[in-house]
Amino acid sequence: MSSRLKGNLIVGQSGGPTAVINQSLTGVVVEATRHTEIQNVYGALHGIQGVMKQEIVDLGAESAEEWERIAKTPCAALGSVRKKPTPDDCAQILKAFQEHNIRYFFYIGGNDSAETTQIVQKLAQEARYEMRVFHVPKTIDNDLKVTDHCPGYGSAARFVALAMMGDTLDNRSLPGIKIDVIMGRHAGFLTAASVLARQEEGDGPHLVYVPEIDFSLDRFVDDVADVHARLGRAVVAVSEGIHNAAGKTVLETQEKDSHGNVQLSGTGALGDFLAEAVRQKLGKKLRVRADTYGYLQRSFPGVVSEVDAREARMAGEAAVRYACGDPLSGSVALKRIENRGGYKSETFLTPLETVARETKSLPRTMIKGTNDIADDFLAYVRPLVGELPRMGHIRAKKIRTQHSGLNTQDSL
Amino acid sequence: MSSRLKGNLIVGQSGGPTAVINQSLTGVVVEATRHTEIQNVYGALHGIQGVMKQEIVDLGAESAEEWERIAKTPCAALGSVRKKPTPDDCAQILKAFQEHNIRYFFYIGGNDSAETTQIVQKLAQEARYEMRVFHVPKTIDNDLKVTDHCPGYGSAARFVALAMMGDTLDNRSLPGIKIDVIMGRHAGFLTAASVLARQEEGDGPHLVYVPEIDFSLDRFVDDVADVHARLGRAVVAVSEGIHNAAGKTVLETQEKDSHGNVQLSGTGALGDFLAEAVRQKLGKKLRVRADTYGYLQRSFPGVVSEVDAREARMAGEAAVRYACGDPLSGSVALKRIENRGGYKSETFLTPLETVARETKSLPRTMIKGTNDIADDFLAYVRPLVGELPRMGHIRAKKIRTQHSGLNTQDSL
Repeated sequence: MSSRLKGNLIVGQSGGPTAVINQSLTGVVVEATRHTEIQNVYGALHGIQGVMKQEIVDLGAESAEEWERIAKTPCAALGSVRKKPTPDDCAQILKAFQEHNIRYFFYIGGNDSAETTQIVQKLAQEARYEMRVFHVPKTIDNDLKVTDHCPGYGSAARFVALAMMGDTLDNRSLPGIKIDVIMGRHAGFLTAASVLARQEEGDGPHLVYVPEIDFSLDRFVDDVADVHARLGRAVVAVSEGIHNAAGKTVLETQEKDSHGNVQLSGTGALGDFLAEAVRQKLGKKLRVRADTYGYLQRSFPGVVSEVDAREARMAGEAAVRYACGDPLSGSVALKRIENRGGYKSETFLTPLETVARETKSLPRTMIKGTNDIADDFLAYVRPLVGELPRMGHIRAKKIRTQHSGLNTQDSL
Repeated sequence: MSSRLKGNLIVGQSGGPTAVINQSLTGVVVEATRHTEIQNVYGALHGIQGVMKQEIVDLGAESAEEWERIAKTPCAALGSVRKKPTPDDCAQILKAFQEHNIRYFFYIGGNDSAETTQIVQKLAQEARYEMRVFHVPKTIDNDLKVTDHCPGYGSAARFVALAMMGDTLDNRSLPGIKIDVIMGRHAGFLTAASVLARQEEGDGPHLVYVPEIDFSLDRFVDDVADVHARLGRAVVAVSEGIHNAAGKTVLETQEKDSHGNVQLSGTGALGDFLAEAVRQKLGKKLRVRADTYGYLQRSFPGVVSEVDAREARMAGEAAVRYACGDPLSGSVALKRIENRGGYKSETFLTPLETVARETKSLPRTMIKGTNDIADDFLAYVRPLVGELPRMGHIRAKKIRTQHSGLNTQDSL
């Protein structure tokens, strides 16, 4: 096969959006203009569905200035989709490729998208239609295998860290029990990032529940009661994906689910359920509140990790460079070559089948007991999130008063 | 009475936190150092409760550098409280003032806090204890009377605008029905700010429900069905305070409330209920999601309107200057003296009783029909929120294909 395959390129975005998924898209488009074997640069609207339905736009028409603006805009600029192609779909996809002489296919997404990429690659191979097929990683869940971490995760983790910084201050202001439900599906990486909010003695989260540890509602309520007894308040980070030893989610274990259907995101049901469980144990008069951080974690504009934005761009660019070199297919992965202060990373290529379908969990070495995160995780996550603002605190001592015979001189 | 009243100052924070409530606190503390009649500057921990229990700190002990950091930190640095003093409490409060020669009292809060300030002022007056008593406005709800707008609102409105900008992009990426529940209690100002997210044709929110318009569940579901039929998706902004003509909240009108107790914030119940109502009308297969923006609206660090931060500081400083002048008491209010490009505001003083207890609603001139916001509101809100980032969009036309005989050449 020629290493200089002439033809058109198509790129699509798939799965849940991230704050930097358009950095990867911009990386693919901008890098493609540097390779003469790539002729037109097309975008598939709503991923593989846009290929099937031939809803295809000419990305060469946008200005360089607009691309830089698109790169900084959260969510999939081409539209996204959650779809695994059926055999019928595959016939349509191949037809579109042939009709438009598409020889380069790039799919930006998570593990399901990697599987779709793999299906497309096999499809072309079986039809003896020569093309290059690459997966560009993206997920706020950080659950892709092989890669050190995923573009999209650092920015979502930054949002979670900031949200928790605000929330633990809110809880200091008006004490009570606060439960925050955090995304991440069946991996605890995003929920774990909440511990970055701990700057001062007493800062939350005081308890962290990740899906890697089997969840027990009784133990949860006891844990909250313990923290409340100690601090008079508690801030709790809970992953949306928590489940019991049998793999059942918390709501599934209830005889009567008040909401009828179980869904991980886009509902406040889990948080509300846990808040009610705490109220039942600690009394109705206690101030118990739940927030579900929701889609803001993946779509909020302007809260972006610089490292994440840079790596997302780099992954898109690298995919095109790999495609214009020897490899015929693969998934772009990140390797950490220096950590901490002088953090550096580089890309490498891994076979599609090593990333497709299966996911990665938060390693046990990064988890502490049943309700906390270990320091190993902090060393891993800090460079990905970037520096966080330092919160101000009043540390002045209490003044001596006649009233307080036993003056404790505690700070706030 | 002397206009040079010598003595100590105490400041407290009350009610729900905001992103800039510590700007006002810093304004009070820094300005106080400029007035020689003010001796020690004290802070009451958790507002009036800290006065009663004599949990008082010496704010003069913090460095100027730390004050600037505190100013930029969200939530009440002194701790907050929701408490209306009883006659017994009043006796304790007076005792604390006398014991510590406190002659200046500043209370940063909303309409309930203004009422507390008024109670404290009457208490001192009746006891013939000479002191100056001032309320410094703060609320994300923007519902205080007299003032043009409230410190804290601009930053919360900025958060809501950005959150909605992200959410409408998310909804373009993965179409469906998205319902966002926004704070603001019984006033629609904060929910209305969601319309700042409209930058491009098709941007949401497509429907906006504020508490000033009686809510009808049937009309709501029909509205959503209409937008869905037109766009294939819908983003809906709903105020947490919506209620029917009889004043009952949506959850109160249901025979069976699945959550047992009705509470406006810190629960996802309203959003989940509305999502379920839409599903029942439009079919279970439709992707319907709800997010409740929650406490992030008032506590998220780093999302601050510059105008809001400046005005919050200004309100704190002005309160001290008024107190060191002729007036004995009052609430600081803001007047808009220039709008748009050259936006300018100044403070003025209004009697405590004009701000205490009652609240203000979103004016009818700022509401459009039963489910939208009028342009009058945009002119009002834009300078308070500040410039918002411009989102990038792919505007390229679809390419011509054999497949699409009737090629529409639509843009995304």
